[in-house]
Amino acid sequence: NKGMASETCAPREPPIPQLQFAPFASALDVGFWHELTQKKLNEYRLDETPKSIKGYYYNGDPFGLPARLTLEFSAFDVNAATPAHCCPAVGTLYNTNTFESFKSCDKKSLLEKAANEIWETIKSGTALENPMLLNKFLLLTFADLKKYHFYYWFCYPALCLPDGIPILQQAVCLGERFSPSQIQALQKAYDELCQMEGVTALPYFVIKYNDKSVWVSLLKNWNDFFQDQEEKVTVGVYDPCNFTQYPGWPLRNLLVLAAYRWGEHVHSIEVLCFRDRTMQGVREITHSIIFEIKLPQMSQSSGKVDCPKAVGWEKNPKGGMGPRMVNLSECMDPKRLAESSVDLNLKLMCWRLVPTLELEKVVSAKCLLLGAGTLGCSVARTLLGWGVRQITFVDNAKISYSNPVRQPLYEFEDCLDGGKPKALAAAERLQKIFPGVNAEGFNMSIPMPGHPVNFSEVTMEQARKDVAQLEWLIDTHDIIFLLMDTRESRWLPAVIAASKRKLVINAALGFDTFVVMRHGLKKPKQQESGDSCSSNPSSSADLLGSSLFSNIPGYKLGCYFCNDVVAPGDSTRDRTLDQQCTVSRPGLAMIAGALAVELMASVLQHPEGGYAVASSSDDRMNEPPTSLGLVPHQIRGFLSRFDNVLPVSLAFDKCTACSPK
Amino acid sequence: NKGMASETCAPREPPIPQLQFAPFASALDVGFWHELTQKKLNEYRLDETPKSIKGYYYNGDPFGLPARLTLEFSAFDVNAATPAHCCPAVGTLYNTNTFESFKSCDKKSLLEKAANEIWETIKSGTALENPMLLNKFLLLTFADLKKYHFYYWFCYPALCLPDGIPILQQAVCLGERFSPSQIQALQKAYDELCQMEGVTALPYFVIKYNDKSVWVSLLKNWNDFFQDQEEKVTVGVYDPCNFTQYPGWPLRNLLVLAAYRWGEHVHSIEVLCFRDRTMQGVREITHSIIFEIKLPQMSQSSGKVDCPKAVGWEKNPKGGMGPRMVNLSECMDPKRLAESSVDLNLKLMCWRLVPTLELEKVVSAKCLLLGAGTLGCSVARTLLGWGVRQITFVDNAKISYSNPVRQPLYEFEDCLDGGKPKALAAAERLQKIFPGVNAEGFNMSIPMPGHPVNFSEVTMEQARKDVAQLEWLIDTHDIIFLLMDTRESRWLPAVIAASKRKLVINAALGFDTFVVMRHGLKKPKQQESGDSCSSNPSSSADLLGSSLFSNIPGYKLGCYFCNDVVAPGDSTRDRTLDQQCTVSRPGLAMIAGALAVELMASVLQHPEGGYAVASSSDDRMNEPPTSLGLVPHQIRGFLSRFDNVLPVSLAFDKCTACSPK
Repeated sequence: NKGMASETCAPREPPIPQLQFAPFASALDVGFWHELTQKKLNEYRLDETPKSIKGYYYNGDPFGLPARLTLEFSAFDVNAATPAHCCPAVGTLYNTNTFESFKSCDKKSLLEKAANEIWETIKSGTALENPMLLNKFLLLTFADLKKYHFYYWFCYPALCLPDGIPILQQAVCLGERFSPSQIQALQKAYDELCQMEGVTALPYFVIKYNDKSVWVSLLKNWNDFFQDQEEKVTVGVYDPCNFTQYPGWPLRNLLVLAAYRWGEHVHSIEVLCFRDRTMQGVREITHSIIFEIKLPQMSQSSGKVDCPKAVGWEKNPKGGMGPRMVNLSECMDPKRLAESSVDLNLKLMCWRLVPTLELEKVVSAKCLLLGAGTLGCSVARTLLGWGVRQITFVDNAKISYSNPVRQPLYEFEDCLDGGKPKALAAAERLQKIFPGVNAEGFNMSIPMPGHPVNFSEVTMEQARKDVAQLEWLIDTHDIIFLLMDTRESRWLPAVIAASKRKLVINAALGFDTFVVMRHGLKKPKQQESGDSCSSNPSSSADLLGSSLFSNIPGYKLGCYFCNDVVAPGDSTRDRTLDQQCTVSRPGLAMIAGALAVELMASVLQHPEGGYAVASSSDDRMNEPPTSLGLVPHQIRGFLSRFDNVLPVSLAFDKCTACSPK
Repeated sequence: NKGMASETCAPREPPIPQLQFAPFASALDVGFWHELTQKKLNEYRLDETPKSIKGYYYNGDPFGLPARLTLEFSAFDVNAATPAHCCPAVGTLYNTNTFESFKSCDKKSLLEKAANEIWETIKSGTALENPMLLNKFLLLTFADLKKYHFYYWFCYPALCLPDGIPILQQAVCLGERFSPSQIQALQKAYDELCQMEGVTALPYFVIKYNDKSVWVSLLKNWNDFFQDQEEKVTVGVYDPCNFTQYPGWPLRNLLVLAAYRWGEHVHSIEVLCFRDRTMQGVREITHSIIFEIKLPQMSQSSGKVDCPKAVGWEKNPKGGMGPRMVNLSECMDPKRLAESSVDLNLKLMCWRLVPTLELEKVVSAKCLLLGAGTLGCSVARTLLGWGVRQITFVDNAKISYSNPVRQPLYEFEDCLDGGKPKALAAAERLQKIFPGVNAEGFNMSIPMPGHPVNFSEVTMEQARKDVAQLEWLIDTHDIIFLLMDTRESRWLPAVIAASKRKLVINAALGFDTFVVMRHGLKKPKQQESGDSCSSNPSSSADLLGSSLFSNIPGYKLGCYFCNDVVAPGDSTRDRTLDQQCTVSRPGLAMIAGALAVELMASVLQHPEGGYAVASSSDDRMNEPPTSLGLVPHQIRGFLSRFDNVLPVSLAFDKCTACSPK
């Protein structure tokens, strides 16, 4: 009796053998869990309402093993096609938000509810019209997407006939009862009916046969089909089961339907478990079984009949009642797993906290980090946290011994033998942290004003190459981060980025102060020229009007150089040691680096992006313009006071870096 | 003429051979550079004023190699003992702050200045009293402590007699001129004089001898010593040189002194280059050389005599005039190098920016980090930046795939095979970043209220062990960081730390808000009891009086639980996925983690430490109480507004965590 349902109702008349049914084994494909993960993250989020899903079964499992009900990635699309010769089954998914509610879910009442629904379809007759309603399943799940552990419990509700179902004639193989031509006729009739109905399989049908012919019809045609009271009644059930003596689970509710509808008049019925199997390319129904039972009486005319008792929760592999768990973290490609875990963390933000967050705008931003020191490392780490996939570093320094404790992408080993080039080591480290990132490093110098180039062919050529390379890099990225340790190295990238209308995020450190700012984003060329006709003459008035520092749009905001009174020059030539190193409180770079990325994220969430009107400290009281909050021009921080202010400044129309002049 | 000084003044009378001198080779020991590094970092800082240093020379180098003037770690202590039989030399260190000022230093004027000083000691006669003044050196240095490159240029100022020094009698070995008994008598007389003077060597002395005896006296006794006008004048010079025909550099200024003082009366002098050498344990002066020169006339009576021309800057190894450089980064142990580089960065803070910073208070703090997640990793990294040497992690979780992009101590590889335990992996990573750190990890659970322990022997025993372990850990650390992801896990450590009067820094994250706070630090037991007599009856009035939230001392500040209306319970039991993970803006943990450490640093800089009166937002305008700024009770940050506020709250006298009750 291995694999047999113990829920079978206890027989009342021991001498007569009772019909037993082989239950389904749930077969949840990895694809199913993958799709559930996606649905949970992107669609259901915290929604716990029941969802319609769809599975299928077929006679394809090895002999002696329980039949499976399969759910795969397509389960969430109830209109998805069912594979050929397979029988669809519809079900309801109860996906809980917490393990706690998964465990405490009232499974008895869930089953009763489902049983009642089936019972109603039987009483109302809709089950006759659509016999798939007899075959509904429940799936209770909890997806622990942090660990990729999936908890689930399957239920195939089956109504029990209170007195059991006596077997009148033991099951025999169809080949023993039908001649080959009868078998062929049966198959043909069944196939024609499927084709006519446009389905891959018929879960239930009625059959008439004589020596020469076989007729098959839909369940709803029962009364017309079996007009003759004396006629033998044969019902067909699409049976996934492979046991020679037992039918599969789908027959159960059909027999309840039959007992309720026709039990008064029909006292025995013959059951043909239609086992439609394709082995080694050959379709075969010969091993279908056929037997006869006594149909219990459950008359609808004998007054109100209560919904029978129901069974159906699947046992766990140990044979007890309990949920099952699959741990997909072990069988998934670790790199894929890392990617989906990172995605998960990000999508969690959208669920409850910031439902309007357009994550894609941040994730898809191609970020160029000029400087891979204290700031560069912190910015890169925060970008990783935001799921940014393309991160490019530019630096010409090598990692020195003092770097790793303050530059969170380097380790002691990177300092040996003179030190690895920072840009390359930083990119390498990002890949080690998260293999899904597309990180690159360019070990190159940024040409700087005040740092004269020797007028030899070689150095001139190199400087030209550096400029061209930098231009190409800025061209191929969306956001340009200025994270260098000198003022003048920020100049050329600021010029190029301004001319190419790229969003520039600039961060610079003092000892315990910092500035994080977005450069003003010049209008696109078309708009600019269109604009200049009308607004150029009035531009000074325009500027005056907005000099209250409120409502300054992004295109009028200043850059790092707009307030300069001196041209950028060589600031490194005569620096003492404490001026050479960025001497700052150790926490400062982490704070400024993190804020630089958060500023970027906020700006990207604004519908106007870099053109967004700058928020100032005064705007802290107002409704924020984006789901992430304010979009300031500058954040100036003072660590000694644990304070930030948000100044706004206008572009200088003769700025050496950002003015069209 | 290899190794000979080319600066020797050009001879006027070619036929008569001129005396030439073998210059010193500077020998700067690694210990010297190490000590210079220490002095620069801890004492000189940005001070560029000349410093007195001290070297020594002796006759111990192989024959044929130039004599060395040695400076070692003791050079900075002018009172340090000189090794036996070595001759001390005093000098002046010019250590520049920048490579630029090293290069642009006016070496001609430095030399002239030194020459003039020597000339003045000759004219005034102080050189007679203290002949070491004739033997002064200059050392110009620039220490690039970021790269461990040391640039230097040595100068041994030597005054030139304008017409050179004609040799009257070629040098011969002392053994050729003196009998063994004379040599023995010389050595005895010299040693006795040294002993009488209490010196290791006499740089200059005067000698008289006949067949039977040798007399030696101090230079200042010249006039008494050589009373007889007809007597031969013999001067002795402690000579480091090993060339058989040439004296070493120290003789030069002596001859100028002699010419100026006695040139009018003495026309020739005999020079004994006293070569005091110990070879294979045997002391030997036989190889000293002796020769006779014509003493030029440079009479002091013939009116005012200008300071003669001077030479002395050392040639570089290529034979040209230029500085030398040693790169010690290659010969130092990389781990030591890493440690000193990290120290450097920290000490730089003290130089110009925060001279009153008591770095040691931060560096020596033993920090216990409860939680090694997003906050724990960021806190640990900032502690590393501050040079904190003892960092201990406690966590019971394993590293999952979503961690590395947000928890900056982990990498993809740490997630494989179920993930490494966080506490151990974090400690391991710190060692990889900086081998000088003493990091440990404890993979253990913190017992929590609301998370019942099974009452089985095993689990009870484990819980008891966990409590004992936690207590021991808190006992052996100075600062306790609460960085967990649940409220209730902070409770037991808060209780234990309060009872043990340990400073607690607590950080907790929302989605885009955070709180970083120090717990109130209860008074030490003695004080507490002494205090309770007088203040306990008035304590409520006391609290009322300070409820304006100004001037609240550290011992009256609240803890994380003081404002709780509910007891800490199991907050994880029924959390949805977004509540389970710390869903926060990716930059938030970096900011809060960095601020937690900066708050700790500020508090430690306050003379009263954790008892310091809490700063509030209003104090931002006032003079900060520490060199690092304010010492708030709490920093509450709002990332959406890029704003921090500094609330202050009082301890609740019935608090479940921190009240004595």
